[in-house]
Amino acid sequence: MIDIIKNIATAPRRTKASVIRELLKITNKPGIISFAGGLPDPELFPYDFVTDAVKEIMAKKGRTALQYGPTDGLPELKEEFIKFLKQYEGIDVKPENLIITTASQQALDMVGRLFIDASDPVLVEKPSYMGALQVFKSYGCEFIGVKLEDDGVSTEELEEKLRWLRSQDEHYKFLYLVPDFQNPSGVTLSEEKRRKVIALSEKYDVAVIEDSPYRQIRFEGKEPKMLYRLDKETHNTDNIISLFTFSKTFAPGLRLGVILAHPQIVKKMEILKQSLDLCSSSLNQLIAAEFLRTGYFGKHIAVVKESYKAKKDTMVAALEKYMPEGVTWTRPEGGLFLWLRLPEDMSADDMFAEAIKENVAYVIGSAFYSDGSGNNTMRLNFSYPTTGEIEEGIKRLATAVKKRLVAAK
Amino acid sequence: MIDIIKNIATAPRRTKASVIRELLKITNKPGIISFAGGLPDPELFPYDFVTDAVKEIMAKKGRTALQYGPTDGLPELKEEFIKFLKQYEGIDVKPENLIITTASQQALDMVGRLFIDASDPVLVEKPSYMGALQVFKSYGCEFIGVKLEDDGVSTEELEEKLRWLRSQDEHYKFLYLVPDFQNPSGVTLSEEKRRKVIALSEKYDVAVIEDSPYRQIRFEGKEPKMLYRLDKETHNTDNIISLFTFSKTFAPGLRLGVILAHPQIVKKMEILKQSLDLCSSSLNQLIAAEFLRTGYFGKHIAVVKESYKAKKDTMVAALEKYMPEGVTWTRPEGGLFLWLRLPEDMSADDMFAEAIKENVAYVIGSAFYSDGSGNNTMRLNFSYPTTGEIEEGIKRLATAVKKRLVAAK
Repeated sequence: MIDIIKNIATAPRRTKASVIRELLKITNKPGIISFAGGLPDPELFPYDFVTDAVKEIMAKKGRTALQYGPTDGLPELKEEFIKFLKQYEGIDVKPENLIITTASQQALDMVGRLFIDASDPVLVEKPSYMGALQVFKSYGCEFIGVKLEDDGVSTEELEEKLRWLRSQDEHYKFLYLVPDFQNPSGVTLSEEKRRKVIALSEKYDVAVIEDSPYRQIRFEGKEPKMLYRLDKETHNTDNIISLFTFSKTFAPGLRLGVILAHPQIVKKMEILKQSLDLCSSSLNQLIAAEFLRTGYFGKHIAVVKESYKAKKDTMVAALEKYMPEGVTWTRPEGGLFLWLRLPEDMSADDMFAEAIKENVAYVIGSAFYSDGSGNNTMRLNFSYPTTGEIEEGIKRLATAVKKRLVAAK
Repeated sequence: MIDIIKNIATAPRRTKASVIRELLKITNKPGIISFAGGLPDPELFPYDFVTDAVKEIMAKKGRTALQYGPTDGLPELKEEFIKFLKQYEGIDVKPENLIITTASQQALDMVGRLFIDASDPVLVEKPSYMGALQVFKSYGCEFIGVKLEDDGVSTEELEEKLRWLRSQDEHYKFLYLVPDFQNPSGVTLSEEKRRKVIALSEKYDVAVIEDSPYRQIRFEGKEPKMLYRLDKETHNTDNIISLFTFSKTFAPGLRLGVILAHPQIVKKMEILKQSLDLCSSSLNQLIAAEFLRTGYFGKHIAVVKESYKAKKDTMVAALEKYMPEGVTWTRPEGGLFLWLRLPEDMSADDMFAEAIKENVAYVIGSAFYSDGSGNNTMRLNFSYPTTGEIEEGIKRLATAVKKRLVAAK
């Protein structure tokens, strides 16, 4: 061990390696069908569009593309994103409501840095997105988990927890939600509950982080309004901070996301971002602006939705065909993930090695629980594997489950 | 004021807006000749290279370019950077010594996050790079300033400070240096002093951050070896953490940098980066890899050096021609900046408004001092303005100085 290692501070000791990123190293082995990642399907990436866009950008806006840009983002991208919000979400905003981020992981870091002091409680769904739990934890927060139901977070339990936190004079700062096709569960928060969440946000003066990476990938069912929009239409609390990313609707390789919030929040975020990375890639921002401006975005999303729906349907059909009784799963109306529950007394953690033996991988559900529960659950990704791999992979997974059921008898 | 603003944590309250970024908003006014920024000359950006490289990348490596990449960086870029280090710096390293960052501002954030707990002392040059001071301060450190001399940081004062810190049982963690063409002063640390710094690093178990954004832009004089290399050749402390960026040698719009350190440090940095932004842009990493692989880097640097040398010479000549007695400046052998000292009793801060009236701008030197001193100094950038603007801008600046001298009499 080198000497200076002993000098590391508290934050890195609190920052744990992502279970997913570590898992991915195992599951990249040849022969394994992996439902573990959360990758978009690379078959669908708009390669020709990127080539053409870069050629055009270098010819007309090269000086902007290769130079430092403003910390809050290039006006070109903000302008197109404002049009996108209007057209797709019925949300009217100004440039000062937006800050461009180095994808939504940076947005999550900025949320954590903006609000969390060590020992502050942070309200999260149970289960919740691991990447968010990881970064919030690095700031030393305590998690207050709220049960996730089939129509989203339990607003009753949420109010109970908020009431308790207030009575304890705790410095609770925000509630973190993935309202659409939640990662990991695939569950969507109903519009009725969205209204309740906003009312609670007003009553308890608590910010709501609306993390929305998958919302545009809805392939069936009715879309509830975004929390940000509902707040404007009802309580107008200005407590909603919405996070968007181009990773699922365009390409993760660009590392671009957007935060939508009150200008006072955006201003604070801008100062934080100065110290984090000065600005996000100008080149990539201009590519994303072109993606929106030319209408390529709409066409691309249509293709993505059709493909992911077919994959989701294949996965659900294979689960119905192969899984033994006692195993249940969600039927997401969009997004990239499905959530599987083994019988209560079975551990998906313990079964992982056996699944790998069968050449199939998943993410253990307990990794998404802030309190280490959820042992009998797992997350299955359907966007990355082909339909053939999905069919075969679920068959293998069912074999692993059945072997374990037999062994337990 | 919105309600949730009152909930912000300690770190954002400690994070102050960058004086430079705020200044740049003023100095972008038409008609002003600005020496305030730190921008590379956009005339020199390799536009055609980027167009061609992206076309090639989309055809052959599109799936890698648009997808998530490994947190520590794409092997393609690491491989080329290893060759670069060997060829240009005589440094032999392995991939596990490197982590790709979202440019060097992120590297500075990672250094701060890795080492600093609130109230920890951090050793910096006086003056030092403002972007580093800003992010280290956001982690709540106390600065211990060490005098900068014409051949770099005073190693005598450094030892004095280290001895004192040790005697106080302080948790001092690292010394932050910009050894080559320092920002803001343009000063280079001599090889003799580099050896002393390494010896002190060993004696006092303190990490040395070798921030090296300008090193490749040396247009005259003899190049001292990098601290990282000297350490390997002498003490082998493994205490040196070297930071590189593509912002000055290629294009800031890509947001790419590299940290070179012991694998144990790199591993810690990797876990931090998982929570900061997961990975840097894969597309941009492949563009940078091509830039190195094709040898375009070497050709580009030759052009940059020739241009910046001409601009530096123009600035020095104009200073000699126009500045009144009592004003002095550094003569940097490379980089982007020159440091100007007014007579001791004159304030560059106070003179700023008058300079703006003369339609010329600079960065006040005091912004680079961790203790607010350096009032009579300013930083002048020569990479961005044209030679014509440099001549005219220095003339205007001299007018402002002379007017102030007259007024003081």
